[in-house]
Amino acid sequence: MFAQIITVGDELLIGQVVDTNSAWMGEALNHIGIEVLRIVSVRDRHDEIIQAIDEAMSCADVVLMTGGLGPTKDDITKKALCDFFNTKLVFNEMVFENVKRILAGRIPLNQLNKEQALVPENCEVINNRVGTASVSWFNRNNKVLISMPGVPQEMKVVMTEEILPRLQNRNGSNSVIHKTFLIRNHAESVLAEKLTDWETALPESIKLAYLPKAGIIRLRLTARGDVLLMEELLAKEVSALKEILGNDIIAEDDVSIENLIGDKLRQKKMTLSTAESCTGGSVAARITAIAGCSDYFKGSVVAYSNEVKMSMLDVDAALLDMHGAVSEEVVIAMAKGVAKNLNTDCAVATSGIAGPGGGTPDKPVGTVWIAAVCGDEIKTYKQEFNRGREMNIERAGTNALLLLLTMLE
Amino acid sequence: MFAQIITVGDELLIGQVVDTNSAWMGEALNHIGIEVLRIVSVRDRHDEIIQAIDEAMSCADVVLMTGGLGPTKDDITKKALCDFFNTKLVFNEMVFENVKRILAGRIPLNQLNKEQALVPENCEVINNRVGTASVSWFNRNNKVLISMPGVPQEMKVVMTEEILPRLQNRNGSNSVIHKTFLIRNHAESVLAEKLTDWETALPESIKLAYLPKAGIIRLRLTARGDVLLMEELLAKEVSALKEILGNDIIAEDDVSIENLIGDKLRQKKMTLSTAESCTGGSVAARITAIAGCSDYFKGSVVAYSNEVKMSMLDVDAALLDMHGAVSEEVVIAMAKGVAKNLNTDCAVATSGIAGPGGGTPDKPVGTVWIAAVCGDEIKTYKQEFNRGREMNIERAGTNALLLLLTMLE
Repeated sequence: MFAQIITVGDELLIGQVVDTNSAWMGEALNHIGIEVLRIVSVRDRHDEIIQAIDEAMSCADVVLMTGGLGPTKDDITKKALCDFFNTKLVFNEMVFENVKRILAGRIPLNQLNKEQALVPENCEVINNRVGTASVSWFNRNNKVLISMPGVPQEMKVVMTEEILPRLQNRNGSNSVIHKTFLIRNHAESVLAEKLTDWETALPESIKLAYLPKAGIIRLRLTARGDVLLMEELLAKEVSALKEILGNDIIAEDDVSIENLIGDKLRQKKMTLSTAESCTGGSVAARITAIAGCSDYFKGSVVAYSNEVKMSMLDVDAALLDMHGAVSEEVVIAMAKGVAKNLNTDCAVATSGIAGPGGGTPDKPVGTVWIAAVCGDEIKTYKQEFNRGREMNIERAGTNALLLLLTMLE
Repeated sequence: MFAQIITVGDELLIGQVVDTNSAWMGEALNHIGIEVLRIVSVRDRHDEIIQAIDEAMSCADVVLMTGGLGPTKDDITKKALCDFFNTKLVFNEMVFENVKRILAGRIPLNQLNKEQALVPENCEVINNRVGTASVSWFNRNNKVLISMPGVPQEMKVVMTEEILPRLQNRNGSNSVIHKTFLIRNHAESVLAEKLTDWETALPESIKLAYLPKAGIIRLRLTARGDVLLMEELLAKEVSALKEILGNDIIAEDDVSIENLIGDKLRQKKMTLSTAESCTGGSVAARITAIAGCSDYFKGSVVAYSNEVKMSMLDVDAALLDMHGAVSEEVVIAMAKGVAKNLNTDCAVATSGIAGPGGGTPDKPVGTVWIAAVCGDEIKTYKQEFNRGREMNIERAGTNALLLLLTMLE
């Protein structure tokens, strides 16, 4: 089964917004064995939207569209869909109730909101429980087109809860098995080199994908065909892979480090806190993105200034003078300080130069010291090389979580 | 002059990589008055690349391509270009010298690197001073196609130094002016209704777009044509818009709230801290994403547990018992506590139920209390309605920053 993605909106073409929906949908579709042939972004123009739909429907089995469903004049996707599928907009009670529920008490319902309850007559309307824009599912000649809101959070909820399960049913006959591994301590090219022989010897029915992200590589094996045969084949390749990578495999599942850390802390009945300088709270934000983290996470001190490192984390002024804020000694003191002051079993701390300014010859931009403590045990890690402020911060967060995970193992 | 962008690479279609090149190129082209009609991402397949080129050359004056120029065998863009333009690959001395210069001292030159010096015969070759992949400029029927490397850093250097200046010469005087406003206190539909009369009366040459994101709406006016005339027209519409929206216009520029807050704090020589429960450090992370924030941001206390609210923010246990952690009283105490303990002029605090669990009849999931303090001044805001954990947290962060900005005005 092949898919094409169409994203609609002037903001994408003038570069005001980066299209992140397509990559997310591409990975999600790939995961259920549907291959994306093409991604097309078009302007909010009636004829250009229709042309894109026409091309997509002629070459793909599944067409996913996002955007152009807002209540305002520049949102014209619904009108274009009506013209393409020779239908008209009709009032839909379910959608209207949903719009009222979403807006209830927030803003008075106006004409534009009522118009959001207008949907193409000959499509299946799917509810969007987190937004006011409705989702339309069209069937034609055994092909489907699904129009979804462009707001990423809304699209993701609709895809996860409604669209992917339905598509998986349609695609049922062709079964796909994925096996994902989280790999640490490798650059992509180094990992690829290490796996060359094993990779080239993989059977035709098994495909390999490298999915690197800020210091971690997800390695995904995808097998297509007879389930029993595939599982047998996969089992063989998996044990071979473990032979090669051993302890560098963090997990044999497509989970986040944040979740792995949460599981370990729950098992050990331990609590966690963070002390953050250059990561500025992003490590705590990643940990608290996991529902239920209050079982083990107590809090964090973001000590961006040295004053706060001293007052809230009891870092010795002499230590800061002697070694500077970006040093192994200070980051250890930060971790110990937050564990003590927040009364937690474990803690992780970061201190570095995110850039673009602040670098020195011996401590260039990109230098980040990380420390993890659990009771008397201490581990540290030095991150180097400047990849730009955003990446420096993201990688420091990932390396902090990795160091903590290693300590919990 | 119209353009189309083609990005090549399997990694884009399986969602391994987000296509950020297209947005960057779209914005750059827009600023020199070239409008992007369409962005197409295709796989590393010979026929699919040629089809995309054929479609693009038939409707656009300028076609920009990135990707598929690497040394490995899955990079086939050059071969596809040769077939489309009926030419063959020939050795290019300048490119070879550049490849040798780039690789010098890093890796030994191998056959694959030598092949990077092969370029299509009938194109103008443009040097890529920061990478080994060469840039090809094709002319046909007064249209141009430019093939560039997919590595964003390389593409940006080539575009900035070589491609944009040449395109600007071709395009002459016709240009585009954008004016963007940040709007607060409005749902998209409410804003659209309020602006209906003004919007419908806009001259043909001025287009309007709504770009909502987590509680803020960016309103973008785009004018095309003669520069002087446009600026006159825009000035008229802008003042009319200000009449309607007044103080709900946060900024007349496409900037972030984080930057606006930073500017205000610098002007007033004031310092900032945050106290975060449900936002878990994400407000601090957003503030510290801005380079140079150490001028005004001292730090944060992420008080996820009540224990930490008491020990690090001096929140009175009785207050927590009486009103609960998610209350106006407690969130004010948190803001005051962090301002005192981190010794800052201003502070903002959040406490809420992000969900999915933890809701009660009187405090349902999605309820977030926010407080901002500056000296003796206190402002609070209650966020309601559940949009899912991720969006609840993101909106709470945006509303916290908005409340702080209002206070600084």
